[in-house]
Amino acid sequence: MRIGILTISDRASSGVYEDKSGPAIRACLQEMLTCEWQPHYLVIPDEQEQIEATLKAMADDEGCCLIVTTGGTGPAKRDVTPEATAAVCEKMLPGFGELMRAVSLRSVPTAILSRQTAGIRGKTLIVNLPGKPAAIRECLLAVMPAIPYCLDLIGGPYLTTNDQVVKAFRPKT
Amino acid sequence: MRIGILTISDRASSGVYEDKSGPAIRACLQEMLTCEWQPHYLVIPDEQEQIEATLKAMADDEGCCLIVTTGGTGPAKRDVTPEATAAVCEKMLPGFGELMRAVSLRSVPTAILSRQTAGIRGKTLIVNLPGKPAAIRECLLAVMPAIPYCLDLIGGPYLTTNDQVVKAFRPKT
Amino acid sequence: MRIGILTISDRASSGVYEDKSGPAIRACLQEMLTCEWQPHYLVIPDEQEQIEATLKAMADDEGCCLIVTTGGTGPAKRDVTPEATAAVCEKMLPGFGELMRAVSLRSVPTAILSRQTAGIRGKTLIVNLPGKPAAIRECLLAVMPAIPYCLDLIGGPYLTTNDQVVKAFRPKT
Repeated sequence: MRIGILTISDRASSGVYEDKSGPAIRACLQEMLTCEWQPHYLVIPDEQEQIEATLKAMADDEGCCLIVTTGGTGPAKRDVTPEATAAVCEKMLPGFGELMRAVSLRSVPTAILSRQTAGIRGKTLIVNLPGKPAAIRECLLAVMPAIPYCLDLIGGPYLTTNDQVVKAFRPKT
Repeated sequence: MRIGILTISDRASSGVYEDKSGPAIRACLQEMLTCEWQPHYLVIPDEQEQIEATLKAMADDEGCCLIVTTGGTGPAKRDVTPEATAAVCEKMLPGFGELMRAVSLRSVPTAILSRQTAGIRGKTLIVNLPGKPAAIRECLLAVMPAIPYCLDLIGGPYLTTNDQVVKAFRPKT
Repeated sequence: MRIGILTISDRASSGVYEDKSGPAIRACLQEMLTCEWQPHYLVIPDEQEQIEATLKAMADDEGCCLIVTTGGTGPAKRDVTPEATAAVCEKMLPGFGELMRAVSLRSVPTAILSRQTAGIRGKTLIVNLPGKPAAIRECLLAVMPAIPYCLDLIGGPYLTTNDQVVKAFRPKT
């Protein structure tokens, strides 16, 4: 089982600073998931074409069942992660962005500036997370309970979670 | 006054199982509305073209002032109800989906997987509800207070509600 | 620093009634902002092309860093403000509409009928507010804490707020 971790940042990708968000996602997933999984981790600049190509490669070639992005979801000119995500997805899941904004709003009123979203490409779920490590964990904790069942529905692998941290929910059908 | 009830389900339409969602909507509307109304009830498969054609026929030919759909709003490949709804509507009303997801989220964390929405086609309001009977009532109770005034605004008939169950709200203008 | 205040209403623009919403926005901004600013105020009908042209002129020619609209966000046939806003913006900010609907929902269940949104055009933030003066203040109070930082991010001027009324939030980076 492979999970894509994609840091989207001009400065991190050019080496101006060290990426802390990608490793923070990896640490969160290690804490939350009990199944075996392999990270596929990349750091790229805020270029829409490159983001789209990377998301496609992670989904179609690398076979990632889940891709988690960080960065590029704000209102600034170079922030194009949501546009790139929408461009490669067949279906958008607005509930992810709504919930993550609502959760972040308890901490910071600027949460409404985040345009983060989620969507489905084939058998892959793509989720945009915020750029800051503290906000990353908060948002992942909010949406993780729904992710294993989402992967079940789109034909992905069977994810299991550490119930001490976050509990996967699978409705009885 | 005609209200369209549209069950969208491959399995229900092919007779693999009996549709329980359409009758659940009918029962909810009977409980909630005090005005006279006629149901126009159909069960069709998860085919986007057929859903679009049926929504158009219910709105334009059958004169339904309100169409309530159930099914096909999840992330799975065959779930195309929101896309069909958006395709036939001139205006989308994102507040319906936001509220229904927020309400369902109190019961199940997988509520964020629902892509349900609502929109306006001519003088018809189209609302996507969840597939499960329990969730249907919960969501209808949440959005029904706003539906009569919405129909007033788009030139529809005057709906009245049973205030013991749910209370229509019409702002003073 | 210029702020556009745009009332969109067939009746107010034709003189059937006096516009109270534009002046209400102006009073709210005067109460909330402590920096110097000039209002650029117009009243126009619910014509999508005219709304788009006015938003462009306020942003590109008048140099407004912020444009606040009122009216035209409902489900009625003539309500086209969100469509015009989306048409002139490069980026949409769905969190503004989500929060304003959630806040209005505490007062009126018909808040879900509002389609108000926000977006970025160049260095200008455009925000749709409700039509009613009471709802205007409630919504502005909800989103104002995030507006100064949003303008920072898009290269706009430095807004300061009256912390007794509403407190601008700028995250430490």
